[in-house]
Amino acid sequence: MVSDVLVVGAGLSGLWAAERLRAAGATVEVLEARDRVGGRVWTHAVGHDRFDMGGQWVGPGQDRMYALLERLGLETFRTWDEGAAVLDLGRRVTQYSGTIPRLSPLKLLKLQLVLSRLERATQGVDAEQPWQSPEAAALDATTVHSWAERQLGDPELQGILQSAVRTVFGADMGELSMLHFLAYLRANGGLMRLVETSGGYQQDRVVGGTQQIAERLAEGVGLAHVHLGEAVRSVAREGGEVVLTTARSTWRGRRVIFALPPHLMGRMHFDSPLPTLRAQLHQRAPMGATVKCLALYERPFWRDQGKSGAAVSTQGPVAVSFDNTSHGGKQACLLAFVVGRPARGFSERPAELRRRSVLDAFERWFGPEAGRPTAYHEVDWAQEPWTGGCPIANLVPGTLSTFGRALRAPVDHLHFAGTETATMGTGYMEGALEAGARAADEVLAALR
Amino acid sequence: MVSDVLVVGAGLSGLWAAERLRAAGATVEVLEARDRVGGRVWTHAVGHDRFDMGGQWVGPGQDRMYALLERLGLETFRTWDEGAAVLDLGRRVTQYSGTIPRLSPLKLLKLQLVLSRLERATQGVDAEQPWQSPEAAALDATTVHSWAERQLGDPELQGILQSAVRTVFGADMGELSMLHFLAYLRANGGLMRLVETSGGYQQDRVVGGTQQIAERLAEGVGLAHVHLGEAVRSVAREGGEVVLTTARSTWRGRRVIFALPPHLMGRMHFDSPLPTLRAQLHQRAPMGATVKCLALYERPFWRDQGKSGAAVSTQGPVAVSFDNTSHGGKQACLLAFVVGRPARGFSERPAELRRRSVLDAFERWFGPEAGRPTAYHEVDWAQEPWTGGCPIANLVPGTLSTFGRALRAPVDHLHFAGTETATMGTGYMEGALEAGARAADEVLAALR
Repeated sequence: MVSDVLVVGAGLSGLWAAERLRAAGATVEVLEARDRVGGRVWTHAVGHDRFDMGGQWVGPGQDRMYALLERLGLETFRTWDEGAAVLDLGRRVTQYSGTIPRLSPLKLLKLQLVLSRLERATQGVDAEQPWQSPEAAALDATTVHSWAERQLGDPELQGILQSAVRTVFGADMGELSMLHFLAYLRANGGLMRLVETSGGYQQDRVVGGTQQIAERLAEGVGLAHVHLGEAVRSVAREGGEVVLTTARSTWRGRRVIFALPPHLMGRMHFDSPLPTLRAQLHQRAPMGATVKCLALYERPFWRDQGKSGAAVSTQGPVAVSFDNTSHGGKQACLLAFVVGRPARGFSERPAELRRRSVLDAFERWFGPEAGRPTAYHEVDWAQEPWTGGCPIANLVPGTLSTFGRALRAPVDHLHFAGTETATMGTGYMEGALEAGARAADEVLAALR
Repeated sequence: MVSDVLVVGAGLSGLWAAERLRAAGATVEVLEARDRVGGRVWTHAVGHDRFDMGGQWVGPGQDRMYALLERLGLETFRTWDEGAAVLDLGRRVTQYSGTIPRLSPLKLLKLQLVLSRLERATQGVDAEQPWQSPEAAALDATTVHSWAERQLGDPELQGILQSAVRTVFGADMGELSMLHFLAYLRANGGLMRLVETSGGYQQDRVVGGTQQIAERLAEGVGLAHVHLGEAVRSVAREGGEVVLTTARSTWRGRRVIFALPPHLMGRMHFDSPLPTLRAQLHQRAPMGATVKCLALYERPFWRDQGKSGAAVSTQGPVAVSFDNTSHGGKQACLLAFVVGRPARGFSERPAELRRRSVLDAFERWFGPEAGRPTAYHEVDWAQEPWTGGCPIANLVPGTLSTFGRALRAPVDHLHFAGTETATMGTGYMEGALEAGARAADEVLAALR
């Protein structure tokens, strides 16, 4: 039997595409390697509630997401953000309010100056086609590290920026192309929006967890058409059809949408070689490294200290923390991100050492009570073979300027979705939806 | 049946490992995805002779290679290097002798100064463990482009360095980590050795082609033990054994040596997740882009003009050319490399345009006769799915300093060879042999 469309990957992007295609009357089968839907959206039962171990926040500008949540009848609640944040620079731990840490006036001035320079540079990037931006090649030949070193000088300020960058990208400034960095900021309303809680991308959470979004979309597609445990191994062309082979089955479709991180397409064998730009793109989009760590407590005791639970640290391994208490205060929780360089190889350390190193940071910031959680839970996304790292794929230096035009371009009967291919909300659930909708529309236009 | 060792990849590295293991009494099966042995070594019949479309040169310092050639009874001959080389800077085409192009005395002075700075920086890198070098993290957070921009300034000099870098790495300066670049130079005796013909890595060629090396090694291993068309899809552990599954068969071994570019390991599914450093390394080693183009002629007419056939150009798409006439002058030939950025997407252009753009360059350098070859032949290595690009995998910025220690480290019963894992001759046939021997010795020690 030949479907109109085969969708590879049952994350938000693939499911959103599938639902749109079904709504337009197309026959669709979704193939998912894992034994669950959701991809980088994954909710675990921990302690007295359910917690998102992958994508969990929505914020201003993410209109598709808010509309979808409303349609699905899912409620949001505010991320706790009252009280002072902690800044850990190693030799001293200070508190501050708002988004900008407490630094000497001179350093603050410098930081503000550089942030506004960054904002101008971000505005200079073409949102739809970053590779067409002025100076695209030169920006793509420079790392964010080289830029920050020149602009900021001061190691403390570089350290703070490094922690922010690690948290957003799962990668160090020295790994990131300046063009990729700016394009990402451009697609998401700037750096401040990315790092802020209230008014920013960490503003709201979904009651009950984000995986419900994927589950309800899958129901909308029809569970009989969402096939788990089907990892695509090879892609062949036979006449007007595309044939996908998994370990168990063979699937035929008139069109295929790949809705997964680019490097996972490198896992498949394509019978006829892909165009070089497409084939080599798969080698140039490594996933970030993110370990998401939760510590559960009887109560959110840090709030009594006038602290928000948020921290930024230039000392490894934890880069940032958040109050992650569940809806209605059902389960008190602190969330830590081990990201970028400190996350590389973190999983190879003994579990007790990992736990201890996270709790040590919490203790330093929130007192001895923080060292005695009722439970500790972590997920290292680099250990998830069907993602390979989190939060996103970062195009390595020299890639976006040269390979960017291949990112979304269909190849023959193959189309590409996944949040990495979005032009707005790129890297977030929001971008997953945009990309899914765009790919579905391409396919519908082609099938007509 | 359980073999002592399974070797994945029948390139020089895998075959060399297999032969060494067999000589020590181990049972070995070699699995090769392609329908031929050799990997990046591949000899085609073109015109009146056979030509290497992959690795073809050997030079001083490659002791393992010269010893192997002697043992196999294969002869070498000198690359033609008499006469003047051509430098094409677009607005002017000049000739020069030796390795350093004819430039203004001031520019020459600058170039010499920077090259000697580069030489000092190269000496500062730890050859065995580049990630232990002083400043490793900072060097790895910077691209060669950023370094060259600061050091050289002058765009013409940067253009010349870019052409050299593209030819050696198949990648632009803006894609390369400074640490990876220096480590590569360190492993190969410095930049000048890499780019020189006489006295350098382009000095000698193998009569009849380098693929004979792979073929004779395969005979040494025993053709019954070298299995073609066996692409490994999954890797599982069962008790004390490793089970490799291909589309056709299942193979069992006590140890496995992977002798292929790192990104191709990303094509396999590992039943138990690899350590994060290993798993994410496979996402961070993209192949360069190299299109090797041959134009055949009745006679090497450029020699009559007092030209060597060598050219360096800062104008796309050809970066460099060589006299590639076969042994004894049997078939006159010019060789052009389209490498790095100009090679990305080159294959998607119509064949006649590609041919014309290469011949146009030859005409500009060697006169109208160069525009009328008897035959033209090219191979784009990015179109070869079982390599994915050439000449080598380049570790992207931020990788060597963090993931470097995972490059050669065995994981459980899995060992890693391939020229990318060598400490000397890295990226060349020489490094393939070093890496194969080292992996074989690891396995022998473990089996004892």
